[in-house]
Amino acid sequence: MSRSRISRVVVTPVAFGDPPLLNVVGVHQPYALRAIVELHTDSGLLGLGETYADEAHLARLDAVATALPGHDPYDLHGLRRLVTDVRGREVGGGGASFGGMLDVDSAVDTVYSPFEVASLDLQGREAGVPVSDLLGGAVRERVPFSGYLFYKWAGHPGHADDAWGEALTPEQVVAQAHRMVDGWGFGSLKLKGGVFPPEEECAAIEALRDAFPEMPLRLDPNGAWTVETSLEVASRLAGVVEYLEDPTPGIEGMAAVAAGTDVPLATNMCVIAMEHLPPAIAQDAVQVVLSDHHLWGGLRKSALLGGITDVWGLGLSMHSNSHLGVSLAAMVHLAAATPNLTYACDTHYPWKTQDVVADGVLSFSGGSVAVPTGPGLGVDLDRDALGELHELYLSCGVRRREDTVYMRSIEPGFTPNTSRW
Amino acid sequence: MSRSRISRVVVTPVAFGDPPLLNVVGVHQPYALRAIVELHTDSGLLGLGETYADEAHLARLDAVATALPGHDPYDLHGLRRLVTDVRGREVGGGGASFGGMLDVDSAVDTVYSPFEVASLDLQGREAGVPVSDLLGGAVRERVPFSGYLFYKWAGHPGHADDAWGEALTPEQVVAQAHRMVDGWGFGSLKLKGGVFPPEEECAAIEALRDAFPEMPLRLDPNGAWTVETSLEVASRLAGVVEYLEDPTPGIEGMAAVAAGTDVPLATNMCVIAMEHLPPAIAQDAVQVVLSDHHLWGGLRKSALLGGITDVWGLGLSMHSNSHLGVSLAAMVHLAAATPNLTYACDTHYPWKTQDVVADGVLSFSGGSVAVPTGPGLGVDLDRDALGELHELYLSCGVRRREDTVYMRSIEPGFTPNTSRW
Ligand SMILES: [Mg+2]
Ligand SMILES: [Mg+2]
Repeated sequence: MSRSRISRVVVTPVAFGDPPLLNVVGVHQPYALRAIVELHTDSGLLGLGETYADEAHLARLDAVATALPGHDPYDLHGLRRLVTDVRGREVGGGGASFGGMLDVDSAVDTVYSPFEVASLDLQGREAGVPVSDLLGGAVRERVPFSGYLFYKWAGHPGHADDAWGEALTPEQVVAQAHRMVDGWGFGSLKLKGGVFPPEEECAAIEALRDAFPEMPLRLDPNGAWTVETSLEVASRLAGVVEYLEDPTPGIEGMAAVAAGTDVPLATNMCVIAMEHLPPAIAQDAVQVVLSDHHLWGGLRKSALLGGITDVWGLGLSMHSNSHLGVSLAAMVHLAAATPNLTYACDTHYPWKTQDVVADGVLSFSGGSVAVPTGPGLGVDLDRDALGELHELYLSCGVRRREDTVYMRSIEPGFTPNTSRW
Repeated sequence: MSRSRISRVVVTPVAFGDPPLLNVVGVHQPYALRAIVELHTDSGLLGLGETYADEAHLARLDAVATALPGHDPYDLHGLRRLVTDVRGREVGGGGASFGGMLDVDSAVDTVYSPFEVASLDLQGREAGVPVSDLLGGAVRERVPFSGYLFYKWAGHPGHADDAWGEALTPEQVVAQAHRMVDGWGFGSLKLKGGVFPPEEECAAIEALRDAFPEMPLRLDPNGAWTVETSLEVASRLAGVVEYLEDPTPGIEGMAAVAAGTDVPLATNMCVIAMEHLPPAIAQDAVQVVLSDHHLWGGLRKSALLGGITDVWGLGLSMHSNSHLGVSLAAMVHLAAATPNLTYACDTHYPWKTQDVVADGVLSFSGGSVAVPTGPGLGVDLDRDALGELHELYLSCGVRRREDTVYMRSIEPGFTPNTSRW
């Protein structure tokens, strides 16, 4: 059997409408950006990946895309070296901007990720097996997700109100939760906090508890609180939340909180790369790690993270940024093949109305998505939709995620709420 | 594409001649045992694995073999559950006996391993790619091994002398080393110690240093020394050995030694399963972990071990028991696809004269083995040789590895040297 090689690489930035979701650093812009990576082989196959599309990140994707033709889709270690080499020729660090929320030291993991996912898609298509099989096999037929609640305005200033309406009070958050649960069937709920003083956000969680007595609940203020405040909230919400996510910034701060509460602490902010695991584990700073294959360097490295959390007895959940269907498919395959996924995954999926993948494979029922059973990721591009969302990228004017900049265009005095309370 | 399934499983115990190699618990018996696992699919493919063949282990392999037909070779997580379930129906723990040298709590990893390797061999054969590609791709074309020196008698009592002759003095160890290096080209050497008082073994290492001034050297007494003695040896051999392997038993003992020397400590005795990593790392007990896919639960779990050692900055080497070519092929694929393999692998391969795999793929040159490039493991059974070694198993009378029992048949008063000096 002659080995197929990557013959052509296409990176397409796309934009899609995003509601004004509030968070610790500001508010989501009217358009979220993603990049769709296509790896075509000389055998006629197509593998897909999806990642961030901030300008600097796109430039790095393009540099890898130029160097990739001729590469063997099975040679993931070689792909890693290629990405590292391409990055090494460039001055300056930093990855996708994450709206200013994360401090990413190296872009290698984030740039490598979509190419690795697309390579695994190709491997699966070539072998006729789903990506979950390449990761050891699906241990569940459906992957559970958590309904992701946000404080939000009724609409973007200057635009019409969106279908979700305003959510600034506990009552409005509960109404949003009902809509999420009624529409998607979620069996757990997460509230993005860090927007209002902690007593208001605790009241919203308590209102959710009253409205959904059995539902696991999470609160994620993205480091908006001091250690002292975090301990007060933990005391108030003990037995109410399944975990508190990033109540305070940094491994040391999280360790100080963890030492004073039995409420599990989760993170996708202070442990976001392999090198953060040793100090976090040594200090018992976090009890739940949120994986994210876009950030951690692909599906195989996320599986390594899963193995590490299993060995050290840490909980494992999954983080989400605004994303489209290629990412969702990859998340579902990874989660399906991760035996110790101890919590339902996060997803922004209900907040968008457009996609680049063809209908029919990915759908939510009972809060979960069935693992695609076709070869590879099991999803195909809708070329018309891809073209439309690329046109939207070209016309929308957004070139990077800048939650704080956008918020200041509306509230000029705004500063991020990190450790504010 | 219809998915192929495992349709037939064959487990064949084999025996092959083994020289009287001395160690801390006694001496190798005249015959070493291995089991060859064959997974046949309904699509006509054959996948191979190799493991221990102690009686209790064989019974467990047979129980899994009975339950396996119908299984999907890609469903490794399901295979793991199947092995766990089969084991759960059985009373009593313990794995292969390891001549009394290791204390293995659970047999799941050791029983799972050959079936996982054979499944990956099938996956590779079905997809037309080598097993190293299923592990992320080979990062080296050849895998370096270390020449494995043993104190030994001239021959087994009652048998003719073997071709290697006696090695009980530093001079004889050096002569053995010359033979190893001349015949196989090894670029590093390991001496199995724990046989004589440490001053004699240090003298042997120093004689090797004189004879091979540039050669990396290792000494492995398998826990024969106290902490105090280990520190004395470490002081004497600092700058002479690349690492000391298991100078003293147990994580606590190793941690006490590590605290008093800069000589790296390696282990295949106190860290032999995932659950040993957290305490060993917390105490900085070892600086080099020896992987072994037979013991650690297959190639994917060994890759996880590789990732963990990379994240925590530990060295990584590879352990070997007496083995045949199916194991060597698997070891080579694993090592080839492990970027952070920081030391040459161990192997007993030169000590045997028989094999079950067809000639032509695996051969040592310059102390290394070229990574097989054919589909799967890239090695095929020699059915005549398999039949002969199975006949030898049936006739030789050895049914488990019992180094101490055999030694006592020759030296009735012998007791293992663990912590003796
Ligand atoms: Mg978060
Ligand atoms: Mg050893």
